[in-house]
Amino acid sequence: MQVFLAEHSGFCFGVRRAVKMALAAHNSNDDVCTYGELIHNPQIVQKLEEEGISVCKDIEHIKGKKVVIRSHGIAREDLELLQTAGNKIIDATCPYVKRAQELVSSVKDLPLLIMGDPDHPEVQALLSYGGKQTKIIQPGEKPEFQNWETLCIVSQTTQKLSNLQELVAQVLPHTLELRVFNTICNATTQRQEAALQLAKNSDLMIVIGGKHSANTRVLQ
Amino acid sequence: MQVFLAEHSGFCFGVRRAVKMALAAHNSNDDVCTYGELIHNPQIVQKLEEEGISVCKDIEHIKGKKVVIRSHGIAREDLELLQTAGNKIIDATCPYVKRAQELVSSVKDLPLLIMGDPDHPEVQALLSYGGKQTKIIQPGEKPEFQNWETLCIVSQTTQKLSNLQELVAQVLPHTLELRVFNTICNATTQRQEAALQLAKNSDLMIVIGGKHSANTRVLQ
Repeated sequence: MQVFLAEHSGFCFGVRRAVKMALAAHNSNDDVCTYGELIHNPQIVQKLEEEGISVCKDIEHIKGKKVVIRSHGIAREDLELLQTAGNKIIDATCPYVKRAQELVSSVKDLPLLIMGDPDHPEVQALLSYGGKQTKIIQPGEKPEFQNWETLCIVSQTTQKLSNLQELVAQVLPHTLELRVFNTICNATTQRQEAALQLAKNSDLMIVIGGKHSANTRVLQ
Repeated sequence: MQVFLAEHSGFCFGVRRAVKMALAAHNSNDDVCTYGELIHNPQIVQKLEEEGISVCKDIEHIKGKKVVIRSHGIAREDLELLQTAGNKIIDATCPYVKRAQELVSSVKDLPLLIMGDPDHPEVQALLSYGGKQTKIIQPGEKPEFQNWETLCIVSQTTQKLSNLQELVAQVLPHTLELRVFNTICNATTQRQEAALQLAKNSDLMIVIGGKHSANTRVLQ
């Protein structure tokens, strides 16, 4: 039996960065926690807990602590609550996710579709940066067509490019101006393409990754 | 033999408007000409000439005349020359084409692709409103991929929607922000869909229209 490793695998830049930031924050001897799981990888989260970096889910109980913001980002309101409560914030939000949040925020007066999984923390956080006309649309879901003057589209960073292309083609006839922010992460695309390539030449393929990780699930 | 007429046929709004404007200008007894053929329909152009509305192609020879701008629009430089030469201008540019010109003008500092026939007067006029980073791309042509931060796309009003959708899908992976101005005219889309529908249920289909008309040629 021959075992091949996909060309692109392992932690992406945003995950590596978040773990490094959390450990660095801990090393400065402050009382550190992460607000929600730092990354979608149970082994690493457990390792961080063993190091003394706990996962907190309730803002009320972490007042004044040093809080590391998870790689997927958190809702705008939660960030404001943490800031108001005097927490020290270490923002480990992946810079690509941060860019998507900033884009959503910059067009909050316009109709905006966020393509992604509505239950995923990244998407929930993105939604919190949008305005009244912001909606989530699941990949493959048919949008409710209207005649939009200007419509914006942004994607969860770990979505498939083909799903974004399909959505764009569907809404294009119904808009006068379509602004598509291609927020799909390059690392995600590379991993998807490498997995596809390897799957074509293999009898069996095993995807190793967090069960809650969108990155992992998209590879299935 | 049964003869069916496509659901949408005949002159579009822009063409009807241009002919009406030219005739109204003539009725006021001024010396009237059109700069280039008013519309792509030889019979109508001939009829207008019989009425005394000539087609002029040389700005030098029409100084001081009342000039009707063709429905496809003219180059920005030509319009300025006519204005400087003291011509009275009747702008019969189709409002949908005008909108496309204004959009091209508004993003002239950004990379812009105009999808259309490079030899068509509408596309040539659109190009004149663009900046240094404006390029024409023919339908079906593969774009020269770069990594664009922001890329704008505009279409000749008479292009097929499917060609625009294809171009958008192709460039999307290479852009961070894609701004698509859907300048394809509704009348064009309706005629294309009606022609397709009729062709499916007919043994023979005849398209009647100007040989130089993009609207006509797209129906083939």
